[in-house]
Amino acid sequence: MADFRIVLVGPKFPGNIGAVARSMANFGLRDLVLVNPACDLDDDAYRRAKHGSFILDGARVVSTFDEALEDCFLVAGTSGVTTKGESNYTRIPVPVREFAEGTRGYREKIALVFGREDIGLLQEELEMCDVLVWIPTGDEFPILNLSHAATIAMYEMYQAEHVPPKTHPANREQKERLFNTFDDLMEEVRYPENRRNGTRVMFRRMMGRSIPSEYEFRTIMGVLGDAVRIIRNGKPWEK
Amino acid sequence: MADFRIVLVGPKFPGNIGAVARSMANFGLRDLVLVNPACDLDDDAYRRAKHGSFILDGARVVSTFDEALEDCFLVAGTSGVTTKGESNYTRIPVPVREFAEGTRGYREKIALVFGREDIGLLQEELEMCDVLVWIPTGDEFPILNLSHAATIAMYEMYQAEHVPPKTHPANREQKERLFNTFDDLMEEVRYPENRRNGTRVMFRRMMGRSIPSEYEFRTIMGVLGDAVRIIRNGKPWEK
Repeated sequence: MADFRIVLVGPKFPGNIGAVARSMANFGLRDLVLVNPACDLDDDAYRRAKHGSFILDGARVVSTFDEALEDCFLVAGTSGVTTKGESNYTRIPVPVREFAEGTRGYREKIALVFGREDIGLLQEELEMCDVLVWIPTGDEFPILNLSHAATIAMYEMYQAEHVPPKTHPANREQKERLFNTFDDLMEEVRYPENRRNGTRVMFRRMMGRSIPSEYEFRTIMGVLGDAVRIIRNGKPWEK
Repeated sequence: MADFRIVLVGPKFPGNIGAVARSMANFGLRDLVLVNPACDLDDDAYRRAKHGSFILDGARVVSTFDEALEDCFLVAGTSGVTTKGESNYTRIPVPVREFAEGTRGYREKIALVFGREDIGLLQEELEMCDVLVWIPTGDEFPILNLSHAATIAMYEMYQAEHVPPKTHPANREQKERLFNTFDDLMEEVRYPENRRNGTRVMFRRMMGRSIPSEYEFRTIMGVLGDAVRIIRNGKPWEK
């Protein structure tokens, strides 16, 4: 994953800074820079940071936006304000997922910049960003809480690099054994011959759609297999 | 989009409930149910809810998990706790993005259930969920703040239905005009003949990779076209 720096410009509420630090810890980020914060890192900040309090301890406070961007290969600003037209070029945003996918594979330092809780980033700050990223929301209430916006952005950066593993699906042979067991069950319950094939295909399709794991196949086969054996041989507990 | 109900089981902090309400408003959700909340909806809840305070006003408080799930077609629980093996079936999770994509196109009511801030959902509550969803995070600090987890889940549900529009890309004819202008520029600057074709292709590839918008093409063409005209005809401001 790229080496993301979280830059908060002029944050006003300690709780928000703490909440951002917590999410940074969640997504494996460490580098937090505060540009002219309008508040102190008080108890509220630490209470909200939880396991991310070490990130607050290491946060750097700087007095200019420029200092915050030192060593950054790319500067990505966020803005809740988007333009309809395309001529105010500094305000044309890229959806955050698209941006995250674009950063995949980079190892350089990238600044993710978040503006003030009320007015966001100023025009001259937006102009220092290489790209503006945008978190799509409903139209009616588009302004996210600062720590929510930062959390979604970090989540997207993390997902772009860490595709979660799918549960281990059953292999062909296991599936065939299940389908055979299902056939045996239809046989044992004297299911009408003329409907067997249709029902066999339907069962196969259902299993196909749900892409079951090995464990799921084994479990279902256990149940059906028991039913077959009991119908065939009688109830073991009555012998 | 499916009709999502947000269910918070035993939430302890009013601020978290308020923050969840705010995000619900951001992503166009309205239906909030609290199961045995361990706190009141106090000033802190309303302060954090901002524009989502109407959702707090409309929140229903119930005393059993069962009541909260009424009319729900599907119940999706969230858990920070995941199993390595697959035999504790109630704890095998689906990544939230995969789940969101699976719900695309549904119009039915789906409950998204979030557990207590400290201990999450109890085993018997997990067993009442049709599916467990999981928000992938770093391994070191996997436990997200309640409102952050809910916000990411709602964001994913929203994205699954609302693919953000890409900026309008330039069409073929506009691109060809730009490439012709670039050719003219190479001509006017007496660019070495034997390198022209290679540079032409390189420019075309660069433009291809960046998938520029109409606006971007027009803007670049304006600059290059002006350069061609000025070299060809002299500086208009000196005439």
